Amino acid sequence: MNKNLTLLTDLYQLTMMQGYYQNNTTQTAVFEMFYRKNPSQNGFAIFAGLHQFIDYINNINFDVDSLEYLKSLNIFTPDFLEYLKNFKFTGDIYSIPEGTIIFPEEPLLRVTAPILEAQFIETTMLNIINHQSLIATKASRVVHAANGDPVLEFGLRRAQGPDSSLYGARAAIIGGCSSTSNVLAGKEFDVKISGTQAHSWIMSFKSELDAFRKYADLFPDKCLLLVDTYDTITSGIPNAITVFDELKAKGLSSDFYGIRLDSGDLAYLSKKARKMLDAAGHKEAKICASCDLDEYLIADLKRQGAKIDTWGVGTKLITSDDCPSFGGVYKLVAEKNGNNNFIPKIKLSDNPDKVTRPGVKKIIRVYDKENYKIKIDIIALEDEHFDESKTYIISDHKARWKKMTIQGGTYITKELLIPIFLEGTCVYNTPTVMEIHSHTKQELNTLWDEFKRLVNPERLPVDLSDKLYELKTNMIEEYRAVELI
Amino acid sequence: MNKNLTLLTDLYQLTMMQGYYQNNTTQTAVFEMFYRKNPSQNGFAIFAGLHQFIDYINNINFDVDSLEYLKSLNIFTPDFLEYLKNFKFTGDIYSIPEGTIIFPEEPLLRVTAPILEAQFIETTMLNIINHQSLIATKASRVVHAANGDPVLEFGLRRAQGPDSSLYGARAAIIGGCSSTSNVLAGKEFDVKISGTQAHSWIMSFKSELDAFRKYADLFPDKCLLLVDTYDTITSGIPNAITVFDELKAKGLSSDFYGIRLDSGDLAYLSKKARKMLDAAGHKEAKICASCDLDEYLIADLKRQGAKIDTWGVGTKLITSDDCPSFGGVYKLVAEKNGNNNFIPKIKLSDNPDKVTRPGVKKIIRVYDKENYKIKIDIIALEDEHFDESKTYIISDHKARWKKMTIQGGTYITKELLIPIFLEGTCVYNTPTVMEIHSHTKQELNTLWDEFKRLVNPERLPVDLSDKLYELKTNMIEEYRAVELI
Repeated sequence: MNKNLTLLTDLYQLTMMQGYYQNNTTQTAVFEMFYRKNPSQNGFAIFAGLHQFIDYINNINFDVDSLEYLKSLNIFTPDFLEYLKNFKFTGDIYSIPEGTIIFPEEPLLRVTAPILEAQFIETTMLNIINHQSLIATKASRVVHAANGDPVLEFGLRRAQGPDSSLYGARAAIIGGCSSTSNVLAGKEFDVKISGTQAHSWIMSFKSELDAFRKYADLFPDKCLLLVDTYDTITSGIPNAITVFDELKAKGLSSDFYGIRLDSGDLAYLSKKARKMLDAAGHKEAKICASCDLDEYLIADLKRQGAKIDTWGVGTKLITSDDCPSFGGVYKLVAEKNGNNNFIPKIKLSDNPDKVTRPGVKKIIRVYDKENYKIKIDIIALEDEHFDESKTYIISDHKARWKKMTIQGGTYITKELLIPIFLEGTCVYNTPTVMEIHSHTKQELNTLWDEFKRLVNPERLPVDLSDKLYELKTNMIEEYRAVELI
Repeated sequence: MNKNLTLLTDLYQLTMMQGYYQNNTTQTAVFEMFYRKNPSQNGFAIFAGLHQFIDYINNINFDVDSLEYLKSLNIFTPDFLEYLKNFKFTGDIYSIPEGTIIFPEEPLLRVTAPILEAQFIETTMLNIINHQSLIATKASRVVHAANGDPVLEFGLRRAQGPDSSLYGARAAIIGGCSSTSNVLAGKEFDVKISGTQAHSWIMSFKSELDAFRKYADLFPDKCLLLVDTYDTITSGIPNAITVFDELKAKGLSSDFYGIRLDSGDLAYLSKKARKMLDAAGHKEAKICASCDLDEYLIADLKRQGAKIDTWGVGTKLITSDDCPSFGGVYKLVAEKNGNNNFIPKIKLSDNPDKVTRPGVKKIIRVYDKENYKIKIDIIALEDEHFDESKTYIISDHKARWKKMTIQGGTYITKELLIPIFLEGTCVYNTPTVMEIHSHTKQELNTLWDEFKRLVNPERLPVDLSDKLYELKTNMIEEYRAVELI
């Protein structure tokens, strides 16, 4: 990403910044990003987009053009515009690594910086991380439904604009896809790309057989033929078999050959196609299917015994069709006072789920020592420590009578937030996309199947430490007391 | 858009191109883009994205990096890569102008070029035009529901990546939004931007009243105060009234002042707020609402008498939440033979709706001469002409017994496709985004209200000319005859 995204922000960020600037409000603030609800009724989400967010921070620059434009709006003062000229991010950012399993309410990203800077980066952060986390999560659902079969990301033409396809393909690979059709994504992220031919190829030759033959001549070792241009059963598959026979007769070995079904009933057609291919001696020929697939249809086709080896998933993955947004938000949680102490901040709401959790926080993930499955996530204050040899009783913060005992010696803890920027300097090396893809796979192994169900999964407990629970409760009561006066 | 999007394509476009190249397949082909179904159950769609598509075509360039990458894949031959080095689009493109009302099955964009070129540009064209047409259509629904009230586009943080927010904001303005919060969109497209303050502003001051006062000091002439940080009725609105009183007492006139509601029940709160503001003498204070709005909720709030003047619409507009993709496709419809004649091409399918319409086509829009409302759209072959003084009987192509008579002298016709590129050179000057916004408004006036209903709208007749109908029927029967042999 070489684009300058500095102005890709909501106008109110700049009006508020000018407000802070004019009031000499330079105190250090702490903001945290979190989300409230898993997309697509999933049991968790996959965190993604950190690398592009880092690029954004590193490239913040109000250039001459941008400053001219802001000046032309007649709402900013000359001294504030002068301040923007040298604006850089100078604070600290802690984040969860990409490919990590996350749950609602957890602080995913924590920013400690002069309030102007911490405020400014909100919108672009949310845009980038909401998008990629959404698509990574959706992809992991689709890959889960495919149950070990390769899933190919095919959505470029239906993605919401160029970036959406490019970074969507990145997120899809992070979520578990094996490859993408997107050539630019292949180049930018060093991931596998795939694709063969479209209906127009078949239509541009005198006959389907002719089109297949020409394709086989060109790419004998990767010969996947699209069989539904005229009629799958009476024309496409017989012609494909003729070409596969010819390849065999020529003694050409093929890494990968087979057919692609792109319309009709995929359960019926794939079973019929399998029989026809097998009867013709092409047991090793693969059947790839595409056509409005998503995790629900893939799971259903598998239940019906469809003979599909590879799934090309387009529109519904790249747009996260059933839930096209990820609701990440970014809230002020603390401010430094004159004595350099962090004063917690809270936002109230009539809706209890919208009351924020005050204070500088972290996530402690607790794994079972035996099998390394996640037992519970604890949102705690930054200065809290858990001793793995000790026994703790954790209360459900929404129903305090529900308690979980974690027995000393039976568990391992891990803190999920790691430093990304310290005093404005990036201290983190982003892994490659394929390394993140592997990390996601390992992460998914830390979850029992109950949490991975596509519909109505079990909810993993995410609770507040007692100290955080008390802080939150006390602050709410303090505000309520003021209200009652 | 300065990015080089040349590699933003599906791998199969390049493998097919190599196939055409190796086979010396250089014939001129005609492809048309169309879509099959209106998004969000709307009665029509709004065409958008042409300008970015033009930019893309003008900037196609396989640079050294791209060619190196393609070479590294080991699937392309050196002579084909050499060919790509100087690859340019040299053909003709006709398109509907942006902001125009469109209907399913109509040829929106027609490309006539050597088949390698016509094939290559498919994916990026679809990506760009599908996205912007989707969002322009969704925006027009939201604006229709708001019934004359300004609609502000606020979705940046939930859009599917940076481009999605930037070009989504452009499309939202084309669809009828009054402004966007997106500063970069304001700069790039010269459209109005808006926004004031977030909860963090309120929380960063000692009290809500203090935060409001500071904001009013800074922006007395555009003072919209966010009133739901602590409690809308008992705290936010009374504090806002105090500040409005103070502004008045100072004799400061304000272009625009008011409150923003961002949570709670917007019908109840807006009516209560209106009463409180009026009782305090602030009848001119505006009430702006935001919070998970879409066309359905806006229409319902209006039915319940909500006192909302301005609507800030975010997530559900910028992602087209209930239908996050626009299904534009691009199909081969004809090829030139050795005698320089166009030979029509057809793609069959078991699903009758997926059989393509063969031949080089255009759209003739027929307006009632009296009121300039659309009567019917006719998809015709390029060489057909309609004489406005003559009477025609048009048959419904899906139910031939349904006929419409257009009486000579009572109608006006307009051809919608206009030249954009001729022999590779752009011959079109894109209007400004605000000009397109005005064009959309005029276009919407050509539709009766029946076609604009949000749910279950009447379907405008789009039919095939007799000549096209016959061509299609004959071609289908020809293929079927072959099949039966």
